[in-house]
Amino acid sequence: MARAQLVAVALAAAALLAAAASSEAAAAASFTCAHILSDMSACFAYARGDGPIGQCCYGVRSLDAAARRFACGCLKSAAASVTGLNLATAAKIPARCAVNIPPISASVDCSRVS
Amino acid sequence: MARAQLVAVALAAAALLAAAASSEAAAAASFTCAHILSDMSACFAYARGDGPIGQCCYGVRSLDAAARRFACGCLKSAAASVTGLNLATAAKIPARCAVNIPPISASVDCSRVS
Repeated sequence: MARAQLVAVALAAAALLAAAASSEAAAAASFTCAHILSDMSACFAYARGDGPIGQCCYGVRSLDAAARRFACGCLKSAAASVTGLNLATAAKIPARCAVNIPPISASVDCSRVS
Repeated sequence: MARAQLVAVALAAAALLAAAASSEAAAAASFTCAHILSDMSACFAYARGDGPIGQCCYGVRSLDAAARRFACGCLKSAAASVTGLNLATAAKIPARCAVNIPPISASVDCSRVS
């Protein structure tokens, strides 16, 4: 990576971290063990013989969706704070990396991310 | 679900939340926007035309692994606090729910979760 690119990346990272610090007050501030264990509690009940697998699986999927909505909110706040984003390029990132991540967009409705 | 099962699930959930509150001091307390944006900063750089896709994809995968290690730590602490877990039953949860979640085990090495 060229030196100019490294500087740009470093500056972008600094801007993102600053944006994160300010955006966290607006959205959920963090994703905690309590979030995880609340959704996973039915799995512990299942593993103790006290509950059905269906509730456990439902909890796991709820947890996954909640984590994705949280990440979506972080990325949305950051996208609104960083100038010069090419949204078409950003939209191709999941396909190019072969990953299923929430969109990087200032206009996404994170409540619809699942 | 029978009433006894509901009570058991509620008690397990309460125990888990209490365990989470105490275990968070030992592990990373939470997963924040700053974690997410730190790993995703190269993707913002890429979407601004300032960086390669490779660094972005590497960051996304690092984020995924970090999130799984965080969840692993939460589940490990909880598993150590909840009595009566059938570890063989717990080990089958990912397959039964067709999901890729960290193991529910008090002895797992979360640093090796990827």
